[in-house]
Amino acid sequence: MQLLLSTWAEAEAYLKTSKGIILPIGSTEQHGPNGLIGTDALCAEVIARGVGDATGAMVGPTIPVGMAVHHMEFAGSMTLKPSTLIALLRDYVLSLSEHGFQRFFFVNGHGGNIASVRAAFYEIYAENRALRGKDAPDLRCTLVNWWENAEVSRLSKELFGNKEGSHATPSEVSVTQYAFPDSIKTTAMEPETAAAGGFYDARDFRRRHPDGRIGSAPGLARPEHGQRLVEAAVGAISRQYESFLGEA
Amino acid sequence: MQLLLSTWAEAEAYLKTSKGIILPIGSTEQHGPNGLIGTDALCAEVIARGVGDATGAMVGPTIPVGMAVHHMEFAGSMTLKPSTLIALLRDYVLSLSEHGFQRFFFVNGHGGNIASVRAAFYEIYAENRALRGKDAPDLRCTLVNWWENAEVSRLSKELFGNKEGSHATPSEVSVTQYAFPDSIKTTAMEPETAAAGGFYDARDFRRRHPDGRIGSAPGLARPEHGQRLVEAAVGAISRQYESFLGEA
Amino acid sequence: MQLLLSTWAEAEAYLKTSKGIILPIGSTEQHGPNGLIGTDALCAEVIARGVGDATGAMVGPTIPVGMAVHHMEFAGSMTLKPSTLIALLRDYVLSLSEHGFQRFFFVNGHGGNIASVRAAFYEIYAENRALRGKDAPDLRCTLVNWWENAEVSRLSKELFGNKEGSHATPSEVSVTQYAFPDSIKTTAMEPETAAAGGFYDARDFRRRHPDGRIGSAPGLARPEHGQRLVEAAVGAISRQYESFLGEA
Amino acid sequence: MQLLLSTWAEAEAYLKTSKGIILPIGSTEQHGPNGLIGTDALCAEVIARGVGDATGAMVGPTIPVGMAVHHMEFAGSMTLKPSTLIALLRDYVLSLSEHGFQRFFFVNGHGGNIASVRAAFYEIYAENRALRGKDAPDLRCTLVNWWENAEVSRLSKELFGNKEGSHATPSEVSVTQYAFPDSIKTTAMEPETAAAGGFYDARDFRRRHPDGRIGSAPGLARPEHGQRLVEAAVGAISRQYESFLGEA
Amino acid sequence: MQLLLSTWAEAEAYLKTSKGIILPIGSTEQHGPNGLIGTDALCAEVIARGVGDATGAMVGPTIPVGMAVHHMEFAGSMTLKPSTLIALLRDYVLSLSEHGFQRFFFVNGHGGNIASVRAAFYEIYAENRALRGKDAPDLRCTLVNWWENAEVSRLSKELFGNKEGSHATPSEVSVTQYAFPDSIKTTAMEPETAAAGGFYDARDFRRRHPDGRIGSAPGLARPEHGQRLVEAAVGAISRQYESFLGEA
Amino acid sequence: MQLLLSTWAEAEAYLKTSKGIILPIGSTEQHGPNGLIGTDALCAEVIARGVGDATGAMVGPTIPVGMAVHHMEFAGSMTLKPSTLIALLRDYVLSLSEHGFQRFFFVNGHGGNIASVRAAFYEIYAENRALRGKDAPDLRCTLVNWWENAEVSRLSKELFGNKEGSHATPSEVSVTQYAFPDSIKTTAMEPETAAAGGFYDARDFRRRHPDGRIGSAPGLARPEHGQRLVEAAVGAISRQYESFLGEA
Ligand code: NI
Ligand code: NI
Ligand code: NI
Ligand code: NI
Ligand code: NI
Ligand code: NI
Repeated sequence: MQLLLSTWAEAEAYLKTSKGIILPIGSTEQHGPNGLIGTDALCAEVIARGVGDATGAMVGPTIPVGMAVHHMEFAGSMTLKPSTLIALLRDYVLSLSEHGFQRFFFVNGHGGNIASVRAAFYEIYAENRALRGKDAPDLRCTLVNWWENAEVSRLSKELFGNKEGSHATPSEVSVTQYAFPDSIKTTAMEPETAAAGGFYDARDFRRRHPDGRIGSAPGLARPEHGQRLVEAAVGAISRQYESFLGEA
Repeated sequence: MQLLLSTWAEAEAYLKTSKGIILPIGSTEQHGPNGLIGTDALCAEVIARGVGDATGAMVGPTIPVGMAVHHMEFAGSMTLKPSTLIALLRDYVLSLSEHGFQRFFFVNGHGGNIASVRAAFYEIYAENRALRGKDAPDLRCTLVNWWENAEVSRLSKELFGNKEGSHATPSEVSVTQYAFPDSIKTTAMEPETAAAGGFYDARDFRRRHPDGRIGSAPGLARPEHGQRLVEAAVGAISRQYESFLGEA
Repeated sequence: MQLLLSTWAEAEAYLKTSKGIILPIGSTEQHGPNGLIGTDALCAEVIARGVGDATGAMVGPTIPVGMAVHHMEFAGSMTLKPSTLIALLRDYVLSLSEHGFQRFFFVNGHGGNIASVRAAFYEIYAENRALRGKDAPDLRCTLVNWWENAEVSRLSKELFGNKEGSHATPSEVSVTQYAFPDSIKTTAMEPETAAAGGFYDARDFRRRHPDGRIGSAPGLARPEHGQRLVEAAVGAISRQYESFLGEA
Repeated sequence: MQLLLSTWAEAEAYLKTSKGIILPIGSTEQHGPNGLIGTDALCAEVIARGVGDATGAMVGPTIPVGMAVHHMEFAGSMTLKPSTLIALLRDYVLSLSEHGFQRFFFVNGHGGNIASVRAAFYEIYAENRALRGKDAPDLRCTLVNWWENAEVSRLSKELFGNKEGSHATPSEVSVTQYAFPDSIKTTAMEPETAAAGGFYDARDFRRRHPDGRIGSAPGLARPEHGQRLVEAAVGAISRQYESFLGEA
Repeated sequence: MQLLLSTWAEAEAYLKTSKGIILPIGSTEQHGPNGLIGTDALCAEVIARGVGDATGAMVGPTIPVGMAVHHMEFAGSMTLKPSTLIALLRDYVLSLSEHGFQRFFFVNGHGGNIASVRAAFYEIYAENRALRGKDAPDLRCTLVNWWENAEVSRLSKELFGNKEGSHATPSEVSVTQYAFPDSIKTTAMEPETAAAGGFYDARDFRRRHPDGRIGSAPGLARPEHGQRLVEAAVGAISRQYESFLGEA
Repeated sequence: MQLLLSTWAEAEAYLKTSKGIILPIGSTEQHGPNGLIGTDALCAEVIARGVGDATGAMVGPTIPVGMAVHHMEFAGSMTLKPSTLIALLRDYVLSLSEHGFQRFFFVNGHGGNIASVRAAFYEIYAENRALRGKDAPDLRCTLVNWWENAEVSRLSKELFGNKEGSHATPSEVSVTQYAFPDSIKTTAMEPETAAAGGFYDARDFRRRHPDGRIGSAPGLARPEHGQRLVEAAVGAISRQYESFLGEA
């Protein structure tokens, strides 16, 4: 059930059955030679909607632009400053909480968001407590990265072995190839598998990772792999969502 | 050309041909008994992408949640505070400007965004000037509301006459029915045409407009009207975009 | 009744009779060759006080510096960033609301303020709701531009025809000549009527409008015209204020 | 020379002769039984303008609302939060510095502003340095309280002895009586001289100082005393201003 | 070498030999029945200073209060909101970078800080880039948790096995017992090993973990264990610091 | 009693006996040729702890970095912007107030902090009032500078006469020599007593005061003088603290 495709009366009815909502969050940033700039947003969205379908959960609008300061030396990358992203998440959660939502389950597509999102959770708890005092509702926020679960890890390893890497991975590129078959890019890459390694700021990232990939061989991406990855992710994350709702 | 569906190399190539980008902005808020909560975001997105197709312009990610403080008494509505929306827009434009984008054309789906977006333009100009001094690029931002042009006005009037109203209008509902035919809602409404009139804050809005509509009869919405409205809007706004780019 | 010229006991007594207050807001920015930098603040103040006299309303202090980022290439112009102006307005309204004021009627002298002020209204409604919960008072804010009413429009047209323009207008210069007869400037202008047209940021403004005027012939300003304009504005806006207070 | 009553060309010409500007800052807050709510703004303004006349300095717009959190239990008092006042002052000074102003001389009417204004000076210095780097202009800000100089102190002592007190003083009330003779209030006060003493927040202030005065007998105020006080203040502060401009 | 115990000339001399600085960050929050409220700050400080002694690195002042929103239901706990902590870290790093420091190595004592600190790194990179443009120095920030290295993990396991837990651990209590032998607390605990498990906000934390411990048996803490843990941590983290400085 | 060395149960017990807390605040900034960069933080801490011992008061963690924008031209100096320091203080006081602390007694080591700290008090009062409404606790904040009392003034004068100066004073250097005897620096200074005088921003400070001292002869500092100064300060400030707690 998508919030954007519901009426307010449907949202009101939903809230009589559940206090949970799934919020996809991605990023708009370079993803190497053949990866889409929207990869992280698109992956988070397709998987979150799958989870919504599987569990009956309400799925909110996707946050398309996240924290990608370190990608800013590649054309087309967009970023919120961490402080802006925190403010946005605070407004999202606190406005939804006015209607009775209390369980906020973020499906994340971008590692760079994690710190800001987790920081935001405590900004939210602090505001909820400060503004609403003793009557504050018990808000609970959690974040899952779509690739961090046994099913997806196993499948990525099976499909791509040690060529998965950590940015512009064949897994995430496969997911977008599956979901957006008209936007499959075929780009020669040299070397096939990019060098791995960390980075600091945007200039440092580009110096170390000149075509944007980190440790990955996204030339191996295939739409049919993407389909399997989506199914694995939806299965695993659906169980995580049910478990989140069921916590005492 | 969608930024989310491009690679960074494609974005870089685009920037050699144009400094313009289209940014759809909507809202996630109640739209009366049969209107989707995502109406404003969905309308802005479908029309902005149409303009992108017609003009070859780059279209960035849709801002799905806008300034909807006044809708907060209806379940499912989300809002950014104006100050948060301004911070978001500043980050969007300034990060895109690092790559060379200089002409920012917002296609807006929600009247409630107008003030914050226009305020943001000057926040952006001020920051650009303060941060970059004499070398600041010449940034230009503009906003068009998709319904505010002769073509759409004429067609809305032809289709719905004085039953168009100003919120949850049959025009915007038609657009979403056309774009999302699986999400057409059939809801009885009483009276057919809601009372018109202004409002102040969220409680006041609900008191005056108890089912969320303002002056409109969205029961008249039809997908085929939506198609015509989209075509009219795309045509008119494409000309506005070309004119914006062509300004001295 | 001016707040600055009242005692707190008088303010307390006033609040037993009315919850309304008029707040003039202007700008400190270039107004062309013969216009005063304070034009917008001075016009708003003189008219707001006139409305206060005519209606018995409390008139608060004038906000002298507004949002004038686009005038910053002309010496002496001052500006608040939109985010600062929003913070200021929030503090003004929320502090007045602690005493029981609930109807905030801004008399505006500067088009550049409109977006930020309207954005601020929703920042205020959001804060009022967040901080005060169910017990939040019903605050209502509105803004009128002194020149946007039938009486003033008619008179400007009668006096200046199509030489009124949109910045540094003969109307606003006339008002300051009437109110500050010792500060009438006589400056040759070439051409008599400046070119019309829009603008983006400050550099763009100066490039297009090199002496600061937009489409206007302020050499036509006369103090006696100013007197008539003030009277027209006070009449029209007094009725708007009464109507605002009388709304259900 | 008042900025509000000058044209931009006059401001430009002034800047060829001086980099200094005087900025009056007051407050809008209760001033006891017979003191005007605008006392601090009105005193700062009349004295600052006198200094401007005496020295030929440019005088900017008066900041009418300052930091008066502790007065908020008295009707009609307005306040900026310290953080808002700092933001406002930053915008004032940095926007004026774009034109070449470098010496900012605040004439203050309200003790409660001092901390926030002095804090703002360092916010400004920090921003100037951060934004403009090696090319940052040498900005200098200073604040004088109109009553803190030998001339005014001596005269206040001569006129009111130990009945001057520290808030709603006969000196400041006299100044407003002189400047606004139509707004002289005659209110019985009991006791003639209020109790002295400190305070913490607004509730504590009202508990300790129930009619708003602190240690003062403003019933002794007379317009003719106000005239002498203004003259003394203008003389003393004019010398302070000249000395400020003349500093190496 | 401690910054607080150096002169500015010594700091200037140091900067000719190294661009690195170690910044301890802790928290002021409940640590169970026998743990000190300052545990995280004290552990970070003693270990960071040990690393400074071992490597010759400059050690800056300890940040004593971190992000501890979730501990606020226990007396004496203090917290910064994440947004405040981010602002503080931005000011710390950017002010040190003015002198030439470029490698910022945070030694952290509190898991709750991690998200905010990592978010802050990108806020810093973004500001550095925005403010300083092409001339921005290459800043690098990293964070190590003192307990997350092979040496400390092995020793904790050897000493406490599965009674280490995750908050108010015997390891961290041992470190403070070693460093502050006059402040060893002997408090009966029931049960010896607290229940493990996660938490959301402060009320939820207290409900699940009523005496403040999570999964730990801090009654096992001993000062002699603390000494060994400090030595292990200093050794491991010294190598991490050298490695950080040596990175290409 | 130090908060960092207490358990939460001890903090809870303390709150049954007192609502007061002492918070030392210093700075990390140059202190001339032989003064430690941590002078202000170290002095505030040692004296605040002495007051805690003498009065039984709870002493919170020292704020090591304050507002030192004007020292930024000397290596090793750190600063918070005033707005950041205000946010930090707001979080400190409001989080402690959640446990029942109501009397906040800041022992300050740095003149540059005074304005920001006093501004922060009103930010805190405003937030307390806004967030908590009628039920807001009566918070009281005060600041004492350790050197501003008759005992310390008399002793400084006796020890150093007119060579005390106003920054990098022999008194404060003596206190750190007493408290940190291993960090006594012997540096030749020329002239023995630095020139006195004010300053504006950081560049101006360095231009006027090239070795960092203002009007002082810190070569006269001796640890034994430091001991006497600490004793004098502890005695005087303990009485100020008792008096603060005892206020009606
Ligand atoms: Ni990705
Ligand atoms: Ni709509
Ligand atoms: Ni105007
Ligand atoms: Ni006063
Ligand atoms: Ni800990
Ligand atoms: Ni000092």
